Amino acid sequence: MKALVSIIMGSTSDLTIMEEAAKFLNDMEIPFEINALSAHRTPDRVMTFAKEAHTRGVKVIIAGAGGAAHLPGVIAGLTPLPVIGVPIKSSNSVNGWDSILSILQMPAGIPVATVALDGARNAGILAAQMLALSDIDLFAKLQQYKQQLAQKVVDANQKLDNIQYKYKV
Amino acid sequence: MKALVSIIMGSTSDLTIMEEAAKFLNDMEIPFEINALSAHRTPDRVMTFAKEAHTRGVKVIIAGAGGAAHLPGVIAGLTPLPVIGVPIKSSNSVNGWDSILSILQMPAGIPVATVALDGARNAGILAAQMLALSDIDLFAKLQQYKQQLAQKVVDANQKLDNIQYKYKV
Amino acid sequence: MKALVSIIMGSTSDLTIMEEAAKFLNDMEIPFEINALSAHRTPDRVMTFAKEAHTRGVKVIIAGAGGAAHLPGVIAGLTPLPVIGVPIKSSNSVNGWDSILSILQMPAGIPVATVALDGARNAGILAAQMLALSDIDLFAKLQQYKQQLAQKVVDANQKLDNIQYKYKV
Amino acid sequence: MKALVSIIMGSTSDLTIMEEAAKFLNDMEIPFEINALSAHRTPDRVMTFAKEAHTRGVKVIIAGAGGAAHLPGVIAGLTPLPVIGVPIKSSNSVNGWDSILSILQMPAGIPVATVALDGARNAGILAAQMLALSDIDLFAKLQQYKQQLAQKVVDANQKLDNIQYKYKV
Amino acid sequence: MKALVSIIMGSTSDLTIMEEAAKFLNDMEIPFEINALSAHRTPDRVMTFAKEAHTRGVKVIIAGAGGAAHLPGVIAGLTPLPVIGVPIKSSNSVNGWDSILSILQMPAGIPVATVALDGARNAGILAAQMLALSDIDLFAKLQQYKQQLAQKVVDANQKLDNIQYKYKV
Amino acid sequence: MKALVSIIMGSTSDLTIMEEAAKFLNDMEIPFEINALSAHRTPDRVMTFAKEAHTRGVKVIIAGAGGAAHLPGVIAGLTPLPVIGVPIKSSNSVNGWDSILSILQMPAGIPVATVALDGARNAGILAAQMLALSDIDLFAKLQQYKQQLAQKVVDANQKLDNIQYKYKV
Amino acid sequence: MKALVSIIMGSTSDLTIMEEAAKFLNDMEIPFEINALSAHRTPDRVMTFAKEAHTRGVKVIIAGAGGAAHLPGVIAGLTPLPVIGVPIKSSNSVNGWDSILSILQMPAGIPVATVALDGARNAGILAAQMLALSDIDLFAKLQQYKQQLAQKVVDANQKLDNIQYKYKV
Amino acid sequence: MKALVSIIMGSTSDLTIMEEAAKFLNDMEIPFEINALSAHRTPDRVMTFAKEAHTRGVKVIIAGAGGAAHLPGVIAGLTPLPVIGVPIKSSNSVNGWDSILSILQMPAGIPVATVALDGARNAGILAAQMLALSDIDLFAKLQQYKQQLAQKVVDANQKLDNIQYKYKV
Repeated sequence: MKALVSIIMGSTSDLTIMEEAAKFLNDMEIPFEINALSAHRTPDRVMTFAKEAHTRGVKVIIAGAGGAAHLPGVIAGLTPLPVIGVPIKSSNSVNGWDSILSILQMPAGIPVATVALDGARNAGILAAQMLALSDIDLFAKLQQYKQQLAQKVVDANQKLDNIQYKYKV
Repeated sequence: MKALVSIIMGSTSDLTIMEEAAKFLNDMEIPFEINALSAHRTPDRVMTFAKEAHTRGVKVIIAGAGGAAHLPGVIAGLTPLPVIGVPIKSSNSVNGWDSILSILQMPAGIPVATVALDGARNAGILAAQMLALSDIDLFAKLQQYKQQLAQKVVDANQKLDNIQYKYKV
Repeated sequence: MKALVSIIMGSTSDLTIMEEAAKFLNDMEIPFEINALSAHRTPDRVMTFAKEAHTRGVKVIIAGAGGAAHLPGVIAGLTPLPVIGVPIKSSNSVNGWDSILSILQMPAGIPVATVALDGARNAGILAAQMLALSDIDLFAKLQQYKQQLAQKVVDANQKLDNIQYKYKV
Repeated sequence: MKALVSIIMGSTSDLTIMEEAAKFLNDMEIPFEINALSAHRTPDRVMTFAKEAHTRGVKVIIAGAGGAAHLPGVIAGLTPLPVIGVPIKSSNSVNGWDSILSILQMPAGIPVATVALDGARNAGILAAQMLALSDIDLFAKLQQYKQQLAQKVVDANQKLDNIQYKYKV
Repeated sequence: MKALVSIIMGSTSDLTIMEEAAKFLNDMEIPFEINALSAHRTPDRVMTFAKEAHTRGVKVIIAGAGGAAHLPGVIAGLTPLPVIGVPIKSSNSVNGWDSILSILQMPAGIPVATVALDGARNAGILAAQMLALSDIDLFAKLQQYKQQLAQKVVDANQKLDNIQYKYKV
Repeated sequence: MKALVSIIMGSTSDLTIMEEAAKFLNDMEIPFEINALSAHRTPDRVMTFAKEAHTRGVKVIIAGAGGAAHLPGVIAGLTPLPVIGVPIKSSNSVNGWDSILSILQMPAGIPVATVALDGARNAGILAAQMLALSDIDLFAKLQQYKQQLAQKVVDANQKLDNIQYKYKV
Repeated sequence: MKALVSIIMGSTSDLTIMEEAAKFLNDMEIPFEINALSAHRTPDRVMTFAKEAHTRGVKVIIAGAGGAAHLPGVIAGLTPLPVIGVPIKSSNSVNGWDSILSILQMPAGIPVATVALDGARNAGILAAQMLALSDIDLFAKLQQYKQQLAQKVVDANQKLDNIQYKYKV
Repeated sequence: MKALVSIIMGSTSDLTIMEEAAKFLNDMEIPFEINALSAHRTPDRVMTFAKEAHTRGVKVIIAGAGGAAHLPGVIAGLTPLPVIGVPIKSSNSVNGWDSILSILQMPAGIPVATVALDGARNAGILAAQMLALSDIDLFAKLQQYKQQLAQKVVDANQKLDNIQYKYKV
């Protein structure tokens, strides 16, 4: 089994957030790998990883980082694969703004597909959507997932029936 | 020729920005379509468009909008396809922050792959990267494009040789 | 009894905040309904709800949402009724800025009457003020409510009398 | 003819923005009045105006102001009528943030229905929507206006047909 | 004993913060009064208070408020006395930005002397400095206070002597 | 004639803004002086100036600065006089936020009475209000000035009479 | 043993943060001193300290402060030595923005080498890097430190091996 | 002549800003080199450059970049030399915030000495200060430069003498 998606993070302290991406990929039965790599502390490993990923069969890279979050952008400069960036509101972040802006505001030529602050689950979904472009079964699974999302809102709505007010219709 | 990428924008006034995506797709010889659709002014058309796009052969949707930029997120809720969002710093925007945050901060379950403010070219590149996952020729073209980017920086660097300072080495 | 005000929220996790609107409407004896609907997860239900609300007798819609809060704006695009938006500082919000800006910054043509962050009570009051334009009794109740607000400040002021300082007059 | 909507602004320099509300009301054939009143420079006039407006037949107040924009909130504290606030990005504003926050963030009990920065047209539409709750003809006009908005987007879309690209479908 | 400084606050919930101003005035033996008044909930009382304060012998007004904090500015529009504004980071504030901007950004003609977020002690000091312009004894007390501040830093510095490091000189 | 108010600024490039304070003081017939002093470039002069100002008869100091605007706070640490700070949106400022925050957010013990961004006129008025606490004639002049402000709004209002709309009352 | 680096802070409450700089210098066997000095409360001591530091053999100054954080900039105006500034997110700070901007945004001519919010460890490293420019042994130690950083990431990565998912490769 | 300082920038469009650093170094007679290198477009060149710089005799690196400005941080991860970062308010920047935060907010272990937005001159001064730690002549030149700065403020002050006001002392 070869990993189709590679999840990386700047520090293992980001694992709680990034594991949401792993969970979604696992649910969709998409083989993935997960590693910690630092754009600043292990630059050589980052370079090797990013240059080789597509040769190992990886199709999509999900990179999460906080603060001056350079990892997703640095990877994007080194790989021909699509890179999904997850800004993380780490403890040393200025309310998440640094993480968001240093991932999102990439220069023309080197895109990073950025998701919401701490939005690793959405990074997993996005990776699956990309793979599903050439995988009919996965495409079907994603449509099913979408229906479940809708159903959850409908189910949750029933809780609201229990709220008691005289003028509630 | 069927469109593989569909570019939509909230208003035709966003065209100057969004055309950068079109230009890149054209350069990569990827068939695309381009339309204006408003999440708020033409909701029925948005719904029809988003629900049908994948049945017409569209693989990726690029949606640009400014201000309370709902278009990319609304589309993402309606299609199984990956949606790339381009926040636009329109004249009525609060310095672009509204456009960025209302596209980026999507709830879990419904990702939008967000690029930089006014970063439509990167949206085009990202769409191409997704398509290249199952298209070896396109993959090769993208690698070539990346080398050209590097060459441009190298070429531009030569301008710096002309700067004259006594202590410049 | 038909609902005159319809309270909707993007997720039942917003209920603690949104219930303040319900309480006020109940106090004013205004029939209301309350539901969870997601612009992104249940778009069809949102469309049906918003297009039909006025035909069921609903006069005002109060919509609360957090993060990339599209629900109020999407509803506003679909209904001829006035829509009041409540930005919610949900856990995944960037300090509430995303919720505020994605509700407030609607394009020309499609207003959302936005209230303060987590300000659902004010949404309830605003809805009552709109209904009171053609309901003399409700108008009188609102004037009475306003006097009670003033009286509370006056009463609270008496607590300050207990503070002991030598130079306090 | 008695004014149903009263448009006020903190300074006549806000007229260019606020006139958009007047234009919309005029188009909808809703009688309105328009005045400059300053919460800080003419507090007595503001008090008299706000306390009497509903006795003169005014149904909705639209108040625009920039910087530390207190006018809408001060009026809202004095009238039982719904107050719509228009934050204005005046020259002395900190990028509009001061105008937005000092109008939007009203305390519980005293709502101001806030629209987008410089969004006076939407204030006019919102006022019309409130009046239409008890005016069937106006309600029909507003529905017609909404259809025109949609038609404009559709028409504008045709401009996009003229864009020439080899790979445009 | 007549109050020379009048401390007011938008809500008694601001008392914890505002009491710092009272403490400083008490330490300086400056007679003061302290009251809760709301620009939005008790506008008549605010008007009466602000118009009469100087006739009762009050020389300086300190006004604290949070959120859309209009109280200091409204008072400043009504009194010839200097008004000191204290932005308060109340629970419903957007991280204090709304409180700061709606107090600070007053239009030309109506100043509010704004101090730091939750900086009520500095408001007390500023009021004392104003009174000291015509009170030599108070002026001397303030100079003494300033020396105590310096001494405190010097004393605190001695704690640092206890920190043990091999290379600490 | 001895200066009662001393206006200082971090750079002569701030003169256009700061001259508004000078004009107001001149109109009120308050003797003033005006100088450029830099907290960073001429620290010795700043120290001498601030320590001696009150011995020369100066009663109030107005200090304007932009960017990392330390001048008002540094002066405030050195003088027993009240210091009014004017944040200036200089060309090298981050939209004025740096100027505002580095003047406003002074620590407990050392207040700076901060006015709006570029609000030098209000600094002049505030200085006059402080002096008027012990100068009945000046107090009367300030009350007159306030009435003129109100009259200007009333006069400006007449321009609005010329606006022609069919439904304008 | 003479101190090569002098660590100062605006208040001893900043010690928890600033001690990280001390620890790093100690680990590198660089003699340092540590003191509390306030730009506003002990200006004379600051002036004496800053003017004399280089005459005592100090080579680099690290200054930490929060809120309107003037200490690093004021020191920089008084010393020919390089000054490293540490913005501190103290309790009275507006989310750290005031600390960052009032240290970073120094005018041309007077640089402060600013590090991340609460980033005192990096200030220590930066000071060591400066000293290492003329100290081969220290240079070697810093290279070794850098390798340890990389090794830590590699070691931490091994924790990720323990995460169990069916589709984890 | 070997370069002691290496100035790099993400794009030659940053040259206008970055040349201020070159000018200062030239004035101080410090040999320097200047190049364009992109962290995203020429990652291999960046890696080679950063790993070798110190072996070529470079002592300090100045790196300027805008938007998601990764260049300074990436360099800092690869070199044992001190790195000075210059955030640049490029056209595609979100008002400079992205440039500032993605340079400043580096993780512990990898400092970047950040200067003000567009503050390249200060980067040059800071580099000179570092070199002056082991170069007495340069140290003396920097002290002289500082005196000239002070003199300029004193000279500029004389312009203020020409301002004519009746009450100007």
